[in-house]
Amino acid sequence: MRKVAVCAPATPLKREYAEAVAKLAASEFPGITLDFHEQCFIEEGHFAGPDEVRLDALFECANAPDVDAVWFAKGGYGSNRIARDFIGKAGPQAAGKTYLGYSDCGTLLGALYRAKIGRAVHAPMPVDIKRDGGDEAIRRVLGWFGNGKTGLEPGLSGKPVAAFNLYTLGMLVGTQLMPPLDGHEILIEEVGEYEYAIDRLVFHIVEHLHDVAGIRLGEVSAVPENDRPFGAEPEEIVRYWCERYGIPYLGRAAIGHSSANRIVPFGLEA
Amino acid sequence: MRKVAVCAPATPLKREYAEAVAKLAASEFPGITLDFHEQCFIEEGHFAGPDEVRLDALFECANAPDVDAVWFAKGGYGSNRIARDFIGKAGPQAAGKTYLGYSDCGTLLGALYRAKIGRAVHAPMPVDIKRDGGDEAIRRVLGWFGNGKTGLEPGLSGKPVAAFNLYTLGMLVGTQLMPPLDGHEILIEEVGEYEYAIDRLVFHIVEHLHDVAGIRLGEVSAVPENDRPFGAEPEEIVRYWCERYGIPYLGRAAIGHSSANRIVPFGLEA
Repeated sequence: MRKVAVCAPATPLKREYAEAVAKLAASEFPGITLDFHEQCFIEEGHFAGPDEVRLDALFECANAPDVDAVWFAKGGYGSNRIARDFIGKAGPQAAGKTYLGYSDCGTLLGALYRAKIGRAVHAPMPVDIKRDGGDEAIRRVLGWFGNGKTGLEPGLSGKPVAAFNLYTLGMLVGTQLMPPLDGHEILIEEVGEYEYAIDRLVFHIVEHLHDVAGIRLGEVSAVPENDRPFGAEPEEIVRYWCERYGIPYLGRAAIGHSSANRIVPFGLEA
Repeated sequence: MRKVAVCAPATPLKREYAEAVAKLAASEFPGITLDFHEQCFIEEGHFAGPDEVRLDALFECANAPDVDAVWFAKGGYGSNRIARDFIGKAGPQAAGKTYLGYSDCGTLLGALYRAKIGRAVHAPMPVDIKRDGGDEAIRRVLGWFGNGKTGLEPGLSGKPVAAFNLYTLGMLVGTQLMPPLDGHEILIEEVGEYEYAIDRLVFHIVEHLHDVAGIRLGEVSAVPENDRPFGAEPEEIVRYWCERYGIPYLGRAAIGHSSANRIVPFGLEA
């Protein structure tokens, strides 16, 4: 992986984060060229520009013949609004690339995986440089660009796998963008949701996920305090629904909204 | 409708609200007997008792031969955890009854409607007596018990209809509990969700709702303030997704998390 193009299918990236990532890459990974599309920095309401602008930037990155990987800058919500059009019109150049991100951008990863376009990879994003230890998250991805081996989620077992933010997966299931995940280990993580909302979302996904190989649970962080205790921790919640639906619960996963978030290439890692 | 049994499939009701509703009913609607099941007042973590306790109370109310209607006391989250077992084991007595509620209890209404068990009716619940004008919401339901005609949502057009909290519907679509809603007008309302979350949920439901007659939007209340403006109001959001998916947007609906919440019998009102 030599040339990496960055665009923002959901919400905008602060320029200072792009600059910090570019600086780190230039000083430590001289073999990699990072190209931040100007669209990353556009702000329009919630989004990094209107749908058409985000879609155009994604096309530019995906269709550029000299780009090896498209790295999503940030999640936050919005990639579902452009995913269908992107998949429908992606050119032949798009098929040879690797696409990286997580959180809301899991919608695009799922859609790419379903359409068998390129290679979908759950991975930290440029915005993660702002976190405690964020430099390490960025190095993990840049290192993986170089060798395709380091920084991987340690529990990858040889079964096909996919990793998602729970809420993002909840909004993806049953849609035209949802990939078939029979036989896959599903890794999920969540941030900022009440336990009752986690319970509700896990109900929804286990209703949809038939014949998966199992579920592993990543970090569940920043759970807000409700007016009363829910009565079960996130891991108990996932165990409960897995048991009810006959889905193997396979333990914890090293993914989440933190700098410890590891890399998970969708499907069968070569 | 003479005898109405109240249970709480999700979260507990405060006894003072039950007492206030009982008092109002006794003084103004002497022909109606209201029976609050003690399970309404159980608190265990988030729920009005463990799943089995809530399920048992629901069975007792639904299977009682002298009960005409089962009125859900309160939403809040949890009825999805018992809906499948209830539907699977509901006795013949359950089929002759009317079931009323909204919000989280929309899961049960949807499941009953799918299973063609009894009559599912979106309506205010006993907990609504706590609201400004809550007495009127309670009178609306008690009056409807008496005559089956007043208090109805004013836009009911003669097309089959169903009404849901948006998030509840979002978690219901594609599940074993989801009724077929082809040809139906779908009324949705929401409370306490960010606009970006509303956008995400509407995406999810329009992906699932094929061949509905259209969508009407009820109240969208208590939208939290985000760190930046979303850029579209809830009605614009619903119009946007309806237009993208070729679903008629049919205007506003008089439902919501307020005392103005009107009654919507699912299906074709006789």
